[in-house]
Amino acid sequence: MTMPSSNAGEAMYDLVEELFPVCRSITGEGLRWTLRRIGEEIPLVVHEIPTGTEVFDWVVPEEWNIRDAYVRNARGEKVIDFARSNLHVLNYSVPVRRTMPLEELRPHLHTVPEHPDWIPYRTSYYRESWGFCLTHNQLEGLEDGDYEVRIDSTLEPGSLSYGECVVPGETDEEVLISCHSCHPSLANDNLSGIAVAVALAKHLGDLESRRYTYRFLFIPGTIGSITWLARNREATQRIRHGLVLSCLGDAGSSTYKRSRRGDALIDRAVEHVLRHSDEDSEIEDFIPYGYDERQYCSPGFDLPVGCLMRTPNGRYPQYHTSADDLDLVRPDALADSLAKCRAVVEILENDEVFLNQNQYCEPQLGKRGLYRGMGGNAELPGFEMALLWLLNLSDGRNGLFDIAERAGLPFRVILQAAEALRSVDLLHPAEREATVRAERLDSPVHGSDDSAVCSAIMG
Amino acid sequence: MTMPSSNAGEAMYDLVEELFPVCRSITGEGLRWTLRRIGEEIPLVVHEIPTGTEVFDWVVPEEWNIRDAYVRNARGEKVIDFARSNLHVLNYSVPVRRTMPLEELRPHLHTVPEHPDWIPYRTSYYRESWGFCLTHNQLEGLEDGDYEVRIDSTLEPGSLSYGECVVPGETDEEVLISCHSCHPSLANDNLSGIAVAVALAKHLGDLESRRYTYRFLFIPGTIGSITWLARNREATQRIRHGLVLSCLGDAGSSTYKRSRRGDALIDRAVEHVLRHSDEDSEIEDFIPYGYDERQYCSPGFDLPVGCLMRTPNGRYPQYHTSADDLDLVRPDALADSLAKCRAVVEILENDEVFLNQNQYCEPQLGKRGLYRGMGGNAELPGFEMALLWLLNLSDGRNGLFDIAERAGLPFRVILQAAEALRSVDLLHPAEREATVRAERLDSPVHGSDDSAVCSAIMG
Amino acid sequence: MTMPSSNAGEAMYDLVEELFPVCRSITGEGLRWTLRRIGEEIPLVVHEIPTGTEVFDWVVPEEWNIRDAYVRNARGEKVIDFARSNLHVLNYSVPVRRTMPLEELRPHLHTVPEHPDWIPYRTSYYRESWGFCLTHNQLEGLEDGDYEVRIDSTLEPGSLSYGECVVPGETDEEVLISCHSCHPSLANDNLSGIAVAVALAKHLGDLESRRYTYRFLFIPGTIGSITWLARNREATQRIRHGLVLSCLGDAGSSTYKRSRRGDALIDRAVEHVLRHSDEDSEIEDFIPYGYDERQYCSPGFDLPVGCLMRTPNGRYPQYHTSADDLDLVRPDALADSLAKCRAVVEILENDEVFLNQNQYCEPQLGKRGLYRGMGGNAELPGFEMALLWLLNLSDGRNGLFDIAERAGLPFRVILQAAEALRSVDLLHPAEREATVRAERLDSPVHGSDDSAVCSAIMG
Repeated sequence: MTMPSSNAGEAMYDLVEELFPVCRSITGEGLRWTLRRIGEEIPLVVHEIPTGTEVFDWVVPEEWNIRDAYVRNARGEKVIDFARSNLHVLNYSVPVRRTMPLEELRPHLHTVPEHPDWIPYRTSYYRESWGFCLTHNQLEGLEDGDYEVRIDSTLEPGSLSYGECVVPGETDEEVLISCHSCHPSLANDNLSGIAVAVALAKHLGDLESRRYTYRFLFIPGTIGSITWLARNREATQRIRHGLVLSCLGDAGSSTYKRSRRGDALIDRAVEHVLRHSDEDSEIEDFIPYGYDERQYCSPGFDLPVGCLMRTPNGRYPQYHTSADDLDLVRPDALADSLAKCRAVVEILENDEVFLNQNQYCEPQLGKRGLYRGMGGNAELPGFEMALLWLLNLSDGRNGLFDIAERAGLPFRVILQAAEALRSVDLLHPAEREATVRAERLDSPVHGSDDSAVCSAIMG
Repeated sequence: MTMPSSNAGEAMYDLVEELFPVCRSITGEGLRWTLRRIGEEIPLVVHEIPTGTEVFDWVVPEEWNIRDAYVRNARGEKVIDFARSNLHVLNYSVPVRRTMPLEELRPHLHTVPEHPDWIPYRTSYYRESWGFCLTHNQLEGLEDGDYEVRIDSTLEPGSLSYGECVVPGETDEEVLISCHSCHPSLANDNLSGIAVAVALAKHLGDLESRRYTYRFLFIPGTIGSITWLARNREATQRIRHGLVLSCLGDAGSSTYKRSRRGDALIDRAVEHVLRHSDEDSEIEDFIPYGYDERQYCSPGFDLPVGCLMRTPNGRYPQYHTSADDLDLVRPDALADSLAKCRAVVEILENDEVFLNQNQYCEPQLGKRGLYRGMGGNAELPGFEMALLWLLNLSDGRNGLFDIAERAGLPFRVILQAAEALRSVDLLHPAEREATVRAERLDSPVHGSDDSAVCSAIMG
Repeated sequence: MTMPSSNAGEAMYDLVEELFPVCRSITGEGLRWTLRRIGEEIPLVVHEIPTGTEVFDWVVPEEWNIRDAYVRNARGEKVIDFARSNLHVLNYSVPVRRTMPLEELRPHLHTVPEHPDWIPYRTSYYRESWGFCLTHNQLEGLEDGDYEVRIDSTLEPGSLSYGECVVPGETDEEVLISCHSCHPSLANDNLSGIAVAVALAKHLGDLESRRYTYRFLFIPGTIGSITWLARNREATQRIRHGLVLSCLGDAGSSTYKRSRRGDALIDRAVEHVLRHSDEDSEIEDFIPYGYDERQYCSPGFDLPVGCLMRTPNGRYPQYHTSADDLDLVRPDALADSLAKCRAVVEILENDEVFLNQNQYCEPQLGKRGLYRGMGGNAELPGFEMALLWLLNLSDGRNGLFDIAERAGLPFRVILQAAEALRSVDLLHPAEREATVRAERLDSPVHGSDDSAVCSAIMG
């Protein structure tokens, strides 16, 4: 496995930049256009689920589209203009074409008083409403008088769109990667997640082979994962590990929110990668608030799905405002997030139980060229420690990942050492071993004093 | 459940004040009078166990009563006088009527040299002895010469008294509340425990109904609990939770000493209440020294009984001295102790397993009026978090208390949220659910593709 | 059990001093002489295993002996001389008799540049080589020119020697004590371990009786333990506890490295002893690098064998240099190490499950003379707390060591209190109890209302 190329960050940033201006929502043409654009990068099947479809306790809503929106003052000046920022309209606003005094308009105006230059992002998907979001400075500048209010939107039967990309593996056991793709012009939340997911899918497609089948979902938040789960209830039983990807482009350190189970392999693997990457990464327990892990971890499913972020939702001031823009996201942060995802995948793909073929005392590594010749030095390099840990713990109860954890060494070092030991026949995969042993037990010449297990293990 | 009224502390303090002057011991008229006085507050059955009764390894001792005691110097002045403080006599002193020189008297005199103004409290229940306790200053002032020593006490066959108040509940499963009631003029240890127990019993009696039956014991320390256990060995099998109450009136923060089991529900419930009440409460592991929890937690019984205190026995300088007086005990501290007891009872009474009726993905709370309409805000109030935690964890394996603990929210918030979810039929009690499910399984029209469990859960 | 006598440290130091000058290796006359000398202190069987013997993955090497070695400069001066320090020769150097220029000699010279006055200790047991170790100052002083190089050694078929001392006990369950005995003039590593092992064996031999059989191994590192394990594979099944002893004479605090299992009784017992002895002792998890515990803890054996040290290998600057000399080792440190070994043995020998004969409430200790008569004091001495803990926890599930751990009291205090309770018949050994109970169950008069268990327990 190679590291992401130095321009991987730039390529992801370019995709974020290209997707940024579009007004997306949980349904509609902006979302559909985004999925088409992702489909130019990776093979994507786009599903359209009709309005009114029942998905568990929910119903797919009407489709929302918007062409224009503005508020014009008495002098005919557009004081709020959707054309300048698509955050200016409360997402899912019903059509409006009226003139009204400021007092009547004011309850429909949303600002962030603490950051008077920023436009907030607000939505009202499931209760009919309309509104405008603006900077607090804009609000303070509004004079009394009548305003022409125009929202040229439609809310009509249509469909909900989501994209699915499957990278097939040797087995039908699956790894789920999910990212919400419904936000309008917000760069970190979650164009960053989309860009990292696309790059990860490309990387997986480039691998010679994969143990797992990887399923990438590009979905509108909440209703999208609920819809997918409702339509794929049986399929969820094949999911062995999963990650929700979001907010992966800011300069903050990485944060991992555990799955509801808390000790699934995905939880332990991400924690391992973060621990060996950064001094200041954060691990947080599952809470039933956040992104689509809420649905994947609902008790009926309880899937081993965690959430990888940098600064979590709600903990950076720019969150859900116009300041979550192209300046907040950085190519190097995207590249680092991708590298961590790839390191997690490396663990999932390569964690395996091996059996030490020489379990009684250490084998003599020197005669196999795996150990320095000169004795007496106090320190042992990490690679040689990895050899010793693998031999000591490969008793059939520990996989490579368990060993990396107990040894306190990065998984990659353990993996390389395991390959060295396999090359000199000191480690065999446990399943192959089981087969070899079964064959020996069948053999009529088998008659050692030792137990069958010992004779198989000792080779 | 309402909070203790603002004058609950005053009422408890008044009882402490009234009981304070009386000379109590592990038997005798002072104890008997105290039980009668408690019986004016709450329904109390007073038991009299005759001297000589065998109770496990012990025997109920002779009854001790005292009328007067003093030491008079050569000038006829009473230099130590029981009439001034009943602590002046070694509790359980045999009768004495002699004149002796100071050298002979001195081994019978007990002081606290570090606090020369305080009279210590000393006892000799199980070995015949006599003595006086006095301030160190008093001792230093004694001149050589003869002293008239008089202890007008009786130690004769009689009985040991204890009081029992039962507040019946819907089941015969019991909660045991025990407080030692044998100390003479010591306010915090343990008139404070008596006063809180009385107030708690009144509060429980005022409730419309109770799941548990509550048994309050007002007993002499050690011999009283041993006697009760010996006479109620079978009944102990109904005890599900228990608390020893002592030293609950001083200004210190709360301390909870765990039961021998260490992880019983009572342990976890008290810890929860203290954690959500105070920053500086203390939780301590069980040790086989302290109050009557020593007997309840002896290995043959091993009852889930912990001990709630403020500053523990032996850790405040006034402990077992005349300085444990009416100034040490404070109405607000008594009220706070009572509030904590009531919060613990609230958990015991209301902890229950519910089943989320919509386990596959989150239900749409908005359409049920349980969720704000506007999306995009970063923070979620505690009540809405409680709703999400209840839905996420009510899978049949977690009760309300487990959920409160994992959510890090006060039990009361979880309880209120559970009531909201029950009102919209999203939570059912697990047992009722089991019944509903059994009925459906019997129904001939039952034929879903889903497993019976899923169909029952999903409703 | 008595403490080591005040001159135990001196006696151990004397042995270290006597063994120090000899040039040892993993085979040869120096090792053989050392074993003979140990055999004068304690009964020792010396085993000789011929060169070429296969021991698991290894082969017993040729025997190495050395008479002399030096490097002479052009002026005929010995600039490096084995006669001054046996560390000067790379251990296991093949014979050499040549003259060569400095450039050719230099790759065969080893120094410690950070400590220019110290000679390093280097070995090459399993790859034919030769070399000299010298101070860095010596190296710097070497002039260009030709040097006469002479190593008068032999590497020929012979045998590997190790010593075994068995101190028999009442059972054939064994405690293994192992120390490497192959290093030349290095005092702490590991003449200190040899000296403590010898003193411990003497102490055990002096005991009236022992529960366990103790097996002491004096072996060359790595190949010695592998050889012993290969020849005693069945016998290892009798090993219940074990310790590798090394580096026990320096002034540092004690360090214990846990067995691979991590929670074996030996691990808990050594931790207990260190916790109650020192403020600054260190407990470390097992790693598969270090001393012969690597072999005892290889997965095929996985024996409960930890390693007791003071400053661990590689963590003191003098490690594996000429500065690990007689000044580094101190009699008081040796005595302290021995005392800790004896305290560990005391736990292993005396840990036992007792049954409290009075499990329902506390027994009345006062009437048995085990409790002070005067009540009211706040503090309880450790011995009386030990009595209460023993009574509270001796329910058949806890041995003396478990009780000492939960009580936070030294094992010795618990042991003394247990003896006091046995003397008044309040504790019975659990097995004897089981026998008594079986007899009662057979008895036709057995007919109590209580369950059989209770009646047996209550006596």
